[in-house]
Amino acid sequence: MKYSIKDFEGMIKRLRELDTENMYMNDFFLTWEKTDDEIEAVWTVADALRDLRCRNISTKVFDSGLGISIFRDNSTRTRFSFASACNLLGLEVQDLDEKKSQIAHGETVRETANMISFMADVIGIRDDMYIGKGNAYMHAVTEAVQEGFDAGVLEQRPTLVNLQCDIDHPTQLMADTLHVIHEFGGIENIKGKKIAMTWAYSPSYGKPLSVPQGAIGLLTRLGADVVLAHPEGYDVMPEVEEVAKKNAAASGGSYTKTNSMAEAFKAADIVYPKSWAPFAAMEKRTDLYGRGDFDGIDALEKELLAQNAEHKDWTCSEELMATTKDGKALYLHCLPADITGVSCEAGEVDASVFDRYRDSLYKEASFKPYVIAAMILLEKFKDPAAVLKKLEQNGKDRIFTL
Amino acid sequence: MKYSIKDFEGMIKRLRELDTENMYMNDFFLTWEKTDDEIEAVWTVADALRDLRCRNISTKVFDSGLGISIFRDNSTRTRFSFASACNLLGLEVQDLDEKKSQIAHGETVRETANMISFMADVIGIRDDMYIGKGNAYMHAVTEAVQEGFDAGVLEQRPTLVNLQCDIDHPTQLMADTLHVIHEFGGIENIKGKKIAMTWAYSPSYGKPLSVPQGAIGLLTRLGADVVLAHPEGYDVMPEVEEVAKKNAAASGGSYTKTNSMAEAFKAADIVYPKSWAPFAAMEKRTDLYGRGDFDGIDALEKELLAQNAEHKDWTCSEELMATTKDGKALYLHCLPADITGVSCEAGEVDASVFDRYRDSLYKEASFKPYVIAAMILLEKFKDPAAVLKKLEQNGKDRIFTL
Amino acid sequence: MKYSIKDFEGMIKRLRELDTENMYMNDFFLTWEKTDDEIEAVWTVADALRDLRCRNISTKVFDSGLGISIFRDNSTRTRFSFASACNLLGLEVQDLDEKKSQIAHGETVRETANMISFMADVIGIRDDMYIGKGNAYMHAVTEAVQEGFDAGVLEQRPTLVNLQCDIDHPTQLMADTLHVIHEFGGIENIKGKKIAMTWAYSPSYGKPLSVPQGAIGLLTRLGADVVLAHPEGYDVMPEVEEVAKKNAAASGGSYTKTNSMAEAFKAADIVYPKSWAPFAAMEKRTDLYGRGDFDGIDALEKELLAQNAEHKDWTCSEELMATTKDGKALYLHCLPADITGVSCEAGEVDASVFDRYRDSLYKEASFKPYVIAAMILLEKFKDPAAVLKKLEQNGKDRIFTL
Repeated sequence: MKYSIKDFEGMIKRLRELDTENMYMNDFFLTWEKTDDEIEAVWTVADALRDLRCRNISTKVFDSGLGISIFRDNSTRTRFSFASACNLLGLEVQDLDEKKSQIAHGETVRETANMISFMADVIGIRDDMYIGKGNAYMHAVTEAVQEGFDAGVLEQRPTLVNLQCDIDHPTQLMADTLHVIHEFGGIENIKGKKIAMTWAYSPSYGKPLSVPQGAIGLLTRLGADVVLAHPEGYDVMPEVEEVAKKNAAASGGSYTKTNSMAEAFKAADIVYPKSWAPFAAMEKRTDLYGRGDFDGIDALEKELLAQNAEHKDWTCSEELMATTKDGKALYLHCLPADITGVSCEAGEVDASVFDRYRDSLYKEASFKPYVIAAMILLEKFKDPAAVLKKLEQNGKDRIFTL
Repeated sequence: MKYSIKDFEGMIKRLRELDTENMYMNDFFLTWEKTDDEIEAVWTVADALRDLRCRNISTKVFDSGLGISIFRDNSTRTRFSFASACNLLGLEVQDLDEKKSQIAHGETVRETANMISFMADVIGIRDDMYIGKGNAYMHAVTEAVQEGFDAGVLEQRPTLVNLQCDIDHPTQLMADTLHVIHEFGGIENIKGKKIAMTWAYSPSYGKPLSVPQGAIGLLTRLGADVVLAHPEGYDVMPEVEEVAKKNAAASGGSYTKTNSMAEAFKAADIVYPKSWAPFAAMEKRTDLYGRGDFDGIDALEKELLAQNAEHKDWTCSEELMATTKDGKALYLHCLPADITGVSCEAGEVDASVFDRYRDSLYKEASFKPYVIAAMILLEKFKDPAAVLKKLEQNGKDRIFTL
Repeated sequence: MKYSIKDFEGMIKRLRELDTENMYMNDFFLTWEKTDDEIEAVWTVADALRDLRCRNISTKVFDSGLGISIFRDNSTRTRFSFASACNLLGLEVQDLDEKKSQIAHGETVRETANMISFMADVIGIRDDMYIGKGNAYMHAVTEAVQEGFDAGVLEQRPTLVNLQCDIDHPTQLMADTLHVIHEFGGIENIKGKKIAMTWAYSPSYGKPLSVPQGAIGLLTRLGADVVLAHPEGYDVMPEVEEVAKKNAAASGGSYTKTNSMAEAFKAADIVYPKSWAPFAAMEKRTDLYGRGDFDGIDALEKELLAQNAEHKDWTCSEELMATTKDGKALYLHCLPADITGVSCEAGEVDASVFDRYRDSLYKEASFKPYVIAAMILLEKFKDPAAVLKKLEQNGKDRIFTL
């Protein structure tokens, strides 16, 4: 997997070398279901779209069409990123607000999926709350619209962008990594770097596992030395750990684990300290929820908060940051972060650390709309290089010029 | 009224023969307020728009402009159908969420209607909950915007699409019937067919009458033998029955009634089994609601559910389906259906029947966005044939091609 | 400051004489922060955009891009006006619904502002509930996106339109005044006219001060004799009174106060009777709210309602209207009004007065979308005259023509 910060021509050239055929009319669920070529193509198209936009060149490839969003959990940045990506390509967003719909009425996923898709080109779904549910729901939706398309119900087959599930958060991690690529001046420069994905204390309960899992599932492909650090009991899904191990072996990097935040931070080039809930506890909660045992959920929540409170020392402090490579590791976060003394009494990160990296963190987030747009473009066009080239040639203004 | 499944040229030719002048700058409330020419024009334009979209030809006739939606009842498929239709023609949907507005503030319908319409080309309203209210509300809105237009307040006169009222559900029935036309290979083939619009049991209370009423009001125009079947006491509005009788007489078909589901199904070519509430009970509820008598409403609900429970045998079972023409009647439903053993213990239809017709039902629903778009186009353009022809000639891509 | 009702060429010519350079890439907070040239430019561009739209000429200056709206208070007309303005220019509205977002999660304004702005060209905010808060919040947002733009986080710097704050309601007053200009046949005809901005009784509590404040802050610039009338204790912000005095002195008009509605109405050319809460009480409420003292707020509300009830005679009656210039003063209101016998037992205005001015009031409101669009256009284009001229030359249909 090669990559460099290229000019537009360079991006087009690189894109032509990558095999993206399988992405066409296909969905994006998990990064590890995609080849290295496909992953690199997403980054390349994202950069190319951003380059065109910066040159005030329209990238509308749809004259009409809908991008459907389904958010089963609150969201600001992912919601706006999806809306931005759709708008950038010419799709209008139509949100399925399940409270305003008739779904409570006993309607099946299969039916709803078809009913909202008559003119949908893309569906974006966020469903990360219950283990074993979110990703499965997304598959149910894509199977339903494939059936609908095959049966002649739908005139086009809407493709899916996973906006966060119980397993992976691909648009987040793809954006995070594209930021890393830009900061390090090319993907080849990440080889051999130490990346610490570590648990951090937060006063809240039950944050999804999709970020740490997505991180070890993607970052291990870059030839880096990826360390996953967390207190005992805060394990992630074992299947994803298997993915991380295989990836590391294939990329010439490594994947290791530790129960010490200090060890993970030591000489790290990149750190990603973030709270999450233990996988086993999340499984238990899903189970309790399935049985409607809300007292059990309350008890579990209390137990988890107590367990959390034992690990307040897991925080990205100035002291820990000083132990990273030259004291200047690149600090990543998916935002919003729990900042000590700002959004909570004690949290994931010191206010002074967060402040120093604020611009960098916001830049990190700024890649998400382009990553989503790139996924959509690759799902919808067989020859993305030719599409981008022709957009440049057409040179239609995004904002009117004289 | 003639119709056949034509190619695009054939549709344009047919459209030129139909008198649609009166639809221009007019509203769509009830199908029986429209001439046969006008009804056929909606179907023809719907088919033509779909044909263009399938050929990836843009049908955007608005460069900017708003389509306002007001949903006074939950909705998934109608909401998405309206959004799809607007998007197909180039209008942006702006939903009037009455909870986020200042309407509770004591504002009149007349005022709100104008305030939301400054740049509105179309208004779509769903208001089906109370007898004597929904259709009246829609008329109040259109009168208000007509006044606003005449007084120079509004630069354009937004036209209305009835997305379901207490009397009719025209976008639903027009879509249902267009599906029937396609399944039977042309409107002329429906002549002499037996169509059973029948009540069916559902464990819920108070489903709107607009579907059965819309069905007998429209299907009787096709020269078919339309049978309305329901248990005693489940009558529909007498005025609509009068419409059905007149239509049947004019079209050479018939309109009959029975209290036996079996009789209705016998040798039927088309069946539409669906729950609804008795008209008299709905009137009573509206009355109680008007007086704020919520205890009365609770009591009425219990009474109706008890009455319902006496008719659990009114279900679209395999046994009944076997008695239809060749055992293969076309099964219609507006969805979502109450499916026995799936969405409820005992409902409107057997799971195996529903499953066998699933693709057909979804196709039936797929006509709705096109029917709505056709209504809008006919309301906004004096010469729809010329507009469609020119769109084809322009041949602008809907999705970018190389 | 000169103005006349011109044809399109006249508007372009006038616009070329006005200095709008400072508006470019700038925000619109308060009318008194803008020069006379800038204020007149907004009206001129608003009229020009309306002229183009009436001639069915597209005014889309954005091919893609987002207009972000944040409504921290319910809204119908401002919401639809902002959506209309964005649509008119080619921006898609994306509403930040703070209930669906993760803001409760402890996120800072600075962060949210950037996270929603990656592809935002404009942000419209309504935040009028607490003294000292709304305008400050808007400044925090614009500072945050300026920082984001400077740091390379944002590719464009979204500009702000104040959709109502605790100090001013500029889109409302600019629209009100543009209506006055049209009714009087040009801005020069307002010189020497008597304008009465007066308090009026409403059975509700705590209406924002932004309308009376915006009125005295803007109308005093036109060389008119502006009178502010209210019962004792219903003062507005003293800082805005200072603005009114300075404006009046500079424009050759006057600014006076009275505690008599009759005196204000006497021989007035224009009357704007409207309820508001006393500034001191609003400050107290903000304070109580800040301390979480909800009992204190309840007590304050009761006190204010009692105080209100003593002034039921402050109503725009037929008798009072008869005392205005020729009994025919132009009656203004931002709507919705509290109409005696319609929306409340006793309110701001007699039903017969309101009815007589209904068309005029709706026209007054109809300027708001154009005023907002003009603000956006002036914020985004250095040479607005050239942009408008080129739009006319391009002559692209808004609605398809043959």
